[in-house]
Amino acid sequence: MSSSGAATSVRDEVLAANDAYAASFAKGDLPMPPGRKFAVVTCMDARLDPAKYLGLEEGDAHVIRNAGGLASDDAIRSLIISTSLLGTQEVFIIAHTDCGMLTFTNDVCRDKLREETGADASHIDFLPFPDLEESVRQSLARVRETPFFERIPVSGWVYDVQSGRVSEVS
Amino acid sequence: MSSSGAATSVRDEVLAANDAYAASFAKGDLPMPPGRKFAVVTCMDARLDPAKYLGLEEGDAHVIRNAGGLASDDAIRSLIISTSLLGTQEVFIIAHTDCGMLTFTNDVCRDKLREETGADASHIDFLPFPDLEESVRQSLARVRETPFFERIPVSGWVYDVQSGRVSEVS
Repeated sequence: MSSSGAATSVRDEVLAANDAYAASFAKGDLPMPPGRKFAVVTCMDARLDPAKYLGLEEGDAHVIRNAGGLASDDAIRSLIISTSLLGTQEVFIIAHTDCGMLTFTNDVCRDKLREETGADASHIDFLPFPDLEESVRQSLARVRETPFFERIPVSGWVYDVQSGRVSEVS
Repeated sequence: MSSSGAATSVRDEVLAANDAYAASFAKGDLPMPPGRKFAVVTCMDARLDPAKYLGLEEGDAHVIRNAGGLASDDAIRSLIISTSLLGTQEVFIIAHTDCGMLTFTNDVCRDKLREETGADASHIDFLPFPDLEESVRQSLARVRETPFFERIPVSGWVYDVQSGRVSEVS
């Protein structure tokens, strides 16, 4: 735990929680490659705890998260490293109901940023989507069309934030 | 839980874990914006469970993860959505010791991919880095130089995979 830097309540809470975690930490010998040899791509949404909803312990699986749970270029970068260099053999892409990405368009986001910060975001595609399952299918297609994943099973899912349950997207 | 698709042992395990999670799920009413109003960027590494090492419950904070825990373009995209549209007010960037990104170069990765898949990855920058703390500083600089985060405190940290403890990068 570091005591440097400006104190904030969130910082203090986070550091206290980390102190408690480290005090009873007994997983310091785990190897770098994921023990259960799979990777998950899911959304950054605060309501999602992929370790809990998929039953992951420390050391089990790579977890990649971004706004939307998309197979973005950066998620593809991470997945190539995961499968090619660190031995994962299966990929789960998991979006979720009530996703924030369903609630805005690039223009809405850019207008809000211009109003609030005066800065221009016209060069940024925020990758919003109007249809959840279709977005998952597009992510699946992106991964499956990438030649580096030819031997990797990839499946797409929706996590229901009301029930905690995942269901497959066909 | 879905029973469709080809069965794999990992899939069966994951679905059984999800079934157990959903069976006692009692957090179906959480709002979309993170309750504790912060966002974390950290690595996809399997040994890291940010909810555990930072003390996060479902609904608390956005968690963005990629290979390296970098402020990549996609992490910046996610952070803008987090701060501008979903009300987060602080960002923690958390790399970790023994990161796989310290162990290869773009050329090593591209050669391996060409050998294993025959496919050309010369257009992909895998963003490996030779110095952990310097990488965190570069991510901090990227976020701080982005005009959309002017009022957002951003700090950089290293999580020690042997101790479970975070320490700040100055």
